[in-house]
Amino acid sequence: MSDERLEKLRRYFENDRFVSHSDIEIAEVGDDYAVTAADVLPCHLNAEGAVQGGMIYTLADFAFAVLANSLHPTTVTQCAHVSYIRAARTARITATARETERAGHNCIVEVIVRDDEGRTVCVCNFNGFVSSKE
Amino acid sequence: MSDERLEKLRRYFENDRFVSHSDIEIAEVGDDYAVTAADVLPCHLNAEGAVQGGMIYTLADFAFAVLANSLHPTTVTQCAHVSYIRAARTARITATARETERAGHNCIVEVIVRDDEGRTVCVCNFNGFVSSKE
Amino acid sequence: MSDERLEKLRRYFENDRFVSHSDIEIAEVGDDYAVTAADVLPCHLNAEGAVQGGMIYTLADFAFAVLANSLHPTTVTQCAHVSYIRAARTARITATARETERAGHNCIVEVIVRDDEGRTVCVCNFNGFVSSKE
Amino acid sequence: MSDERLEKLRRYFENDRFVSHSDIEIAEVGDDYAVTAADVLPCHLNAEGAVQGGMIYTLADFAFAVLANSLHPTTVTQCAHVSYIRAARTARITATARETERAGHNCIVEVIVRDDEGRTVCVCNFNGFVSSKE
Repeated sequence: MSDERLEKLRRYFENDRFVSHSDIEIAEVGDDYAVTAADVLPCHLNAEGAVQGGMIYTLADFAFAVLANSLHPTTVTQCAHVSYIRAARTARITATARETERAGHNCIVEVIVRDDEGRTVCVCNFNGFVSSKE
Repeated sequence: MSDERLEKLRRYFENDRFVSHSDIEIAEVGDDYAVTAADVLPCHLNAEGAVQGGMIYTLADFAFAVLANSLHPTTVTQCAHVSYIRAARTARITATARETERAGHNCIVEVIVRDDEGRTVCVCNFNGFVSSKE
Repeated sequence: MSDERLEKLRRYFENDRFVSHSDIEIAEVGDDYAVTAADVLPCHLNAEGAVQGGMIYTLADFAFAVLANSLHPTTVTQCAHVSYIRAARTARITATARETERAGHNCIVEVIVRDDEGRTVCVCNFNGFVSSKE
Repeated sequence: MSDERLEKLRRYFENDRFVSHSDIEIAEVGDDYAVTAADVLPCHLNAEGAVQGGMIYTLADFAFAVLANSLHPTTVTQCAHVSYIRAARTARITATARETERAGHNCIVEVIVRDDEGRTVCVCNFNGFVSSKE
């Protein structure tokens, strides 16, 4: 992805205030993937001291949104399926989104959240609705 | 639910820092339901000015967690299925959790997120793993 | 539902040959629910002698299809989320569909599959796409 | 996979009568994937003349079951998430299962159903429960 296009994506998503409030950033955007990341802060934790499920989901959903909006015109989340695999207790977590399929108005994106030892924390599948067919 | 039991739940979840950071509260806990709520703040919004998807999920997941942990011993989210119905643009949103089924180690909880005109924003189904059978 | 409307639904679905092949029938259609049923036959069983997962799903998906097509114009399954609760080993199983939500082109239908002692076998959520808004 | 191991899998699944009744076969089993297939017959079709959703699901679920039971001890489907992409109208359909993740008692398997021109018909994610940890 060109620096210019990445810059445009970053500017658009600067206005996503829940993402900023959650200290999540765009780490990388390639032609067919997007990575979001967060340095784990005390405000990200649940009552057991691991990264909270909503924080994990927010990181994953944002990776989906960045990828879908880099590949297609406006895309919104229609459904998501989330499977939690193990607790995340490392200093940083990332979410990597790749598109599994695109047909008509629909896209399916798999997002894998990993801790910083590369272990899978959560596997998500997002069904996006692409608002125009181009 | 007795005031004492509700107090115990509130104290446990005070340690859920992502929930506090997201300004989400327990609104009500009955024998077979739990309601969480948030007054919508600028930090809850997405780039389009509606409540962000991760915030909606976090509210719903918390309603699930409160209900499951009021009904059962420690319960963790195993999977979730999330369907977004319409954008939330009102001053307050709530999530109401009810258990659809409980069998062995598994429970299924439906959570409906509504805006403050009662319109459905999001429908979620959580599959919880109850760590002991009692 | 009038006998006439039910007759029309039955005639339409007579052409669903996988449903006929699987010996599944429409048991009942009300204003806001639909029930499909099957007398359990040897051809419905898995290698462990319980009703096979694909058969259970087919029964549930058909309850969704009957309900959605009785309430709306042509509706197709977009996604489904399926949770298996317990094995079905009784002589008959039924699937009851109720609409949780309808908004624009989307509908969400919950289907519960039960054995003939009333125990829940499977809980499904279907996201349907309604092809015209009426 | 050795011929002997494949033979053992085939013998086990010969007892899956709904699979036989639906004329579904094991096409191939590798170290990390399994493929099931069906020549499309009139009994597989829905009222619109495309392969019926329950048939597609049954093919996918069977690919999951073959893979999971080739990789692990007894594994049962806990949840499934199914996204239908396009209608299948070709003479043969296949389902290819690959494991995305395995941790403790849980495995996540992605199954892609394709028509015989290689187009994706359906994307599924199965959450399996592996009954012993080995």
